[in-house]
Amino acid sequence: MPLPSPPPQVSGIKQDELRRHNLSLLLRYVHLEGPTQRATLTAQIGLNRSTIGALAADLAAAGLIREETPGVRSGAGRPSLVVVPEIERYQALAFDLRVDRIDAARVGLGGILLARETVPLPDGHRGFDEVIGLLRGTARLLTESLPEDTRLVGVGVAIPAVVRDADGFVRFAPNLGWEERPFGDTLALELERALPRRPFERESVLVANDADLGALAEHTRGVARGHEDVVYLSGNVGLGAGVICGGRPLRGHGGYAGEVGHMIVNPTGQRCRCGARGCWETEVGIDAIVRAAGRTPGDGTTVRSLVSDALAGDELARSALYEVSRWLAVGVGNLVNIFNPELVIFGGDLRELLPMVHRDVVSRMGAGGLTVSREHVELVPSALGVDSPLFGAAELAFARLLDDPLGVAMSLPSAAD
Amino acid sequence: MPLPSPPPQVSGIKQDELRRHNLSLLLRYVHLEGPTQRATLTAQIGLNRSTIGALAADLAAAGLIREETPGVRSGAGRPSLVVVPEIERYQALAFDLRVDRIDAARVGLGGILLARETVPLPDGHRGFDEVIGLLRGTARLLTESLPEDTRLVGVGVAIPAVVRDADGFVRFAPNLGWEERPFGDTLALELERALPRRPFERESVLVANDADLGALAEHTRGVARGHEDVVYLSGNVGLGAGVICGGRPLRGHGGYAGEVGHMIVNPTGQRCRCGARGCWETEVGIDAIVRAAGRTPGDGTTVRSLVSDALAGDELARSALYEVSRWLAVGVGNLVNIFNPELVIFGGDLRELLPMVHRDVVSRMGAGGLTVSREHVELVPSALGVDSPLFGAAELAFARLLDDPLGVAMSLPSAAD
Repeated sequence: MPLPSPPPQVSGIKQDELRRHNLSLLLRYVHLEGPTQRATLTAQIGLNRSTIGALAADLAAAGLIREETPGVRSGAGRPSLVVVPEIERYQALAFDLRVDRIDAARVGLGGILLARETVPLPDGHRGFDEVIGLLRGTARLLTESLPEDTRLVGVGVAIPAVVRDADGFVRFAPNLGWEERPFGDTLALELERALPRRPFERESVLVANDADLGALAEHTRGVARGHEDVVYLSGNVGLGAGVICGGRPLRGHGGYAGEVGHMIVNPTGQRCRCGARGCWETEVGIDAIVRAAGRTPGDGTTVRSLVSDALAGDELARSALYEVSRWLAVGVGNLVNIFNPELVIFGGDLRELLPMVHRDVVSRMGAGGLTVSREHVELVPSALGVDSPLFGAAELAFARLLDDPLGVAMSLPSAAD
Repeated sequence: MPLPSPPPQVSGIKQDELRRHNLSLLLRYVHLEGPTQRATLTAQIGLNRSTIGALAADLAAAGLIREETPGVRSGAGRPSLVVVPEIERYQALAFDLRVDRIDAARVGLGGILLARETVPLPDGHRGFDEVIGLLRGTARLLTESLPEDTRLVGVGVAIPAVVRDADGFVRFAPNLGWEERPFGDTLALELERALPRRPFERESVLVANDADLGALAEHTRGVARGHEDVVYLSGNVGLGAGVICGGRPLRGHGGYAGEVGHMIVNPTGQRCRCGARGCWETEVGIDAIVRAAGRTPGDGTTVRSLVSDALAGDELARSALYEVSRWLAVGVGNLVNIFNPELVIFGGDLRELLPMVHRDVVSRMGAGGLTVSREHVELVPSALGVDSPLFGAAELAFARLLDDPLGVAMSLPSAAD
């Protein structure tokens, strides 16, 4: 039996909360699984037929779903209606603010990608105001041709930063050169001005760390679906982790958990940008790999090019990857002992690295340490490729609607209002 | 806004589950807070007066609580009845299996200590069968004078081991010299034979790692009450952690999470019993401290004696503690970056160490690394002293009853049956 866990909030459940909870379950189900027969919903959600029918009717009245008669009858009896999410009617904007570019998307309910844009961020153009301006322009571009009755449920932003989750305030984003910037508030204000016909509520503009959103996306729509204990590693210039524990994202007190890049693994190692010595990210970050291969960070060397050089016989590239696999094994081994995950997902550039170092990392992890936590763990590449944080940002934007479908749908102003 | 978290199980809430949930909240409240006026329960639990009354009546009918008229009227109007947990009627047994002794207790509903026993475990007497025999004898001793109508709700055991939480199977307990032993099953069988007048269900005998139970006890009844993100460190011969994330215990896939003692912090350090080099426990475990002070592990040196020697001017003891504080800072800093906790609790022998090393650990953690996660973290000693795992074991034993008060109360055989 698992350890007992008292409910985080001592609060009794009332009738109206029960209804909201069940509406949320139903909408979330079709958001994640797509069009689903009522009969399947009855079986999967564990409520009876008439309750499911009543919930579906409520969601349909709010325009969140519609019910269709299936083209093909399955089995005997009356055909079960299919509950279909209203993809066009409820949409979200998602941004993945990366070091070298902004990836942006418009996503419909159900997680369907409807439009996307990429904006390059060349050196010298990562200033706070400039980035805010680019986000504003991209938001306008993505929304200009939307029909009148489409409602924008929210805006989600993934950012390579330590972010305060309450308000999207950026504490520290070394790779953007930002520190202590009111990113969430500023962006919300600018979007409000930029999209006058799509009025926003402040709380619908949500910002989170890119690795945390990568983990969320892989957990909801990627390789970690159905897994409860997952570590997602995001390696680009920095190294971060998003962790799912017992099916829920690890947040920490201020939302800053998962800063695994600054786990000290080599106290006699190199000085990190954070000031400490031997942080994991100084040993396995992209810059470290590039340097170990005798190149210069910023010379255009990528993980992909190094891997292909190594495969082509470049000894320096090969030994750099070998060295990196050693430090990857130390850090991944630590995280496996700490979290006992089923999956360690290699996201971002680490994805390119995995096929090359997989065997080495696993065998080094096995050389010592506890065996029990390693028994069931698998090292896998992210299923959504480099888009995990982008799709995670979309999930973040949809979260409020999914938690309280009718409450939020009623409160959303439409352009036609 | 926190990251969205889909419910771990997709399952609609039905009326009977709602009632069970609310019964559970009410019983848990008085279990943790003690006798409470109905008016307070109404305000705290957020259900209306009549619902609270009905729930209390159900619990009273099962003998789990009783309602009393308060001696002193508070404020105007009718005095609000006081809901009192039935301490004597529902009891649990708790064991903390330590390296040198077994601590045992009989605990009443409400977490009230009713009896305790200590059984020494001298060298050479930690064999599996011998320990099972001692647990059986102690259980008999603790229960022999119980009244007929007392019901034993469960048995909880804290153990310095990597334990499979599903069935209490011990995977690895280096400090007891056990590996792959069916501890939970064997103990349940033996207790069934030893206590024929107190029939047991297998699932009421629960085993968990001692640090996990220390964390649970500090979270429910100790220094971490009301905190959602907590790391509890248990340092005795080994070094383990119990972690509370977002108000819930960190378990991991098989229940093996929190093996922080085998986090590698010094890859050029000493060989650990686990086979790896430079595990945190080889740098800050009691044996490491004793050796650093020029003593021999097993010579009777304790953390307490070292601290008092250092305070008395023993230079070797002082430099040993200084060295230990350095490695404590590395490991605690890593955990703070990973978990962003509000509290790091020093339990077990580490409790003795904390006053001496506190300043040093904090200043070293501040020398580099991310500042954000350190802003709000406090390093504190365990409030329950060395008894945290013992009280955690009692909570573990009560968990089933608290989750489903009527269901479990009805199923419990009483001696009189």
